[in-house]
Amino acid sequence: MDITASSIEVCFSPKLFKYIRTKGECIIVVTDVLRASTSICSALHHGAIQIRPVATLQEAMNLKEKGMLVAAERNGVKVDFADFGNSPYDFEGKKVKGKTIVYTTTNGTRAIEMAREHGTVAIGAFVNLQALSRWIIRQGKPVVMLCAGWKNQFNLEDSVFCGALTESLIQLGTYTVECDSAEAALDLWRVASQDILNYFEKASHRKRLSQLHADDVLEYAFKMNLTSVVPVLSGENIRDMSRIL
Amino acid sequence: MDITASSIEVCFSPKLFKYIRTKGECIIVVTDVLRASTSICSALHHGAIQIRPVATLQEAMNLKEKGMLVAAERNGVKVDFADFGNSPYDFEGKKVKGKTIVYTTTNGTRAIEMAREHGTVAIGAFVNLQALSRWIIRQGKPVVMLCAGWKNQFNLEDSVFCGALTESLIQLGTYTVECDSAEAALDLWRVASQDILNYFEKASHRKRLSQLHADDVLEYAFKMNLTSVVPVLSGENIRDMSRIL
Repeated sequence: MDITASSIEVCFSPKLFKYIRTKGECIIVVTDVLRASTSICSALHHGAIQIRPVATLQEAMNLKEKGMLVAAERNGVKVDFADFGNSPYDFEGKKVKGKTIVYTTTNGTRAIEMAREHGTVAIGAFVNLQALSRWIIRQGKPVVMLCAGWKNQFNLEDSVFCGALTESLIQLGTYTVECDSAEAALDLWRVASQDILNYFEKASHRKRLSQLHADDVLEYAFKMNLTSVVPVLSGENIRDMSRIL
Repeated sequence: MDITASSIEVCFSPKLFKYIRTKGECIIVVTDVLRASTSICSALHHGAIQIRPVATLQEAMNLKEKGMLVAAERNGVKVDFADFGNSPYDFEGKKVKGKTIVYTTTNGTRAIEMAREHGTVAIGAFVNLQALSRWIIRQGKPVVMLCAGWKNQFNLEDSVFCGALTESLIQLGTYTVECDSAEAALDLWRVASQDILNYFEKASHRKRLSQLHADDVLEYAFKMNLTSVVPVLSGENIRDMSRIL
């Protein structure tokens, strides 16, 4: 099976990333809908200059000591030395405008670290779905969607987002699905999109979120197209590239 | 989240198996719908006494030299020294009745090897869905469904089968879904079951199957309840345990 310029591959867990078939120049969309990728969109939308993703708490602590703002979460809970947790509501107004924010989470930033050696890394969430789709089509490269998952396991919200992005790329451009996981994501999106909040209420994932007192972010995370930012990794930092080809 | 006696977990790839949360006494249903698990059901249904799964071609060759019948496939193609490939049509009539068959395939038998240390291993396919469901309910243990996948990647037919088995266990027993992958499998099954052959015709997987000249087995593999056998690993061999509690 050929992997063409307009192919879409979906990877349901970071642990399956090394088995993707797309090689060479591609765009890797990392998604961690609840919550890192939604929060990164929120921070850039509210004027943060850039986000620096780091994989470990130690790196975050070192940068904090150098005077940087830090967002850090483990298992859904804000780490005590951090300035922010990872709720998208945290990154608003004057707290973030003009700032660089160091960011580390249980799942999301590790997926970014993994992806960066293999292509151009963009950050995707429902809140920037349309802007991201248009940006991807302008690049004209194969797309790999990498779900951050939950502790290396499949999760529904990231997978359903990949389905939404897949549908959008098919509708707007010349992209085609060539792997089973993208087909499955598309089917899941079609089921979920009929009533997306209700869909996630029924899902087991929500039990985990309830335990983590995360009910408040569901509504925000599943809103479509709240922002036109397209967060893209450039060197060590993630910046809004929506206005750059 | 508690993993109860009646919990269902689904694992979409052998590479995610070590992240399952179910511990202790459980039933692991290995599925490789196209084709190992369908073929194993077929062989036992047609009177084979037992199937001996082996992971490597070398092991299969050694046992062939000791006079055993061997079924062996790699990348969908029959290996030259083998008596059978892995088409379910191969295992019929007098060729298999009363025989032990050594069996190695690209994906299926490796998944069995992986599962055997972690619980009671049963083999599932659409052709034995109902018999397997009833047998599982009699055991009263948590169930982990392990998709053989395709070269460690997610595949649709195994995932959809897990959805079918999940639905059957919920309807017949007291089983509940407690993980996102089982929820997803259930949704995929509900989409696919409206017209299952057509669903797989559209799937990218079929391109791969066409390349491997496997179109002929699709109709057989997606037929429900052709047999009442319940293949279960016991020591080194897989036997029909449908009549044993």
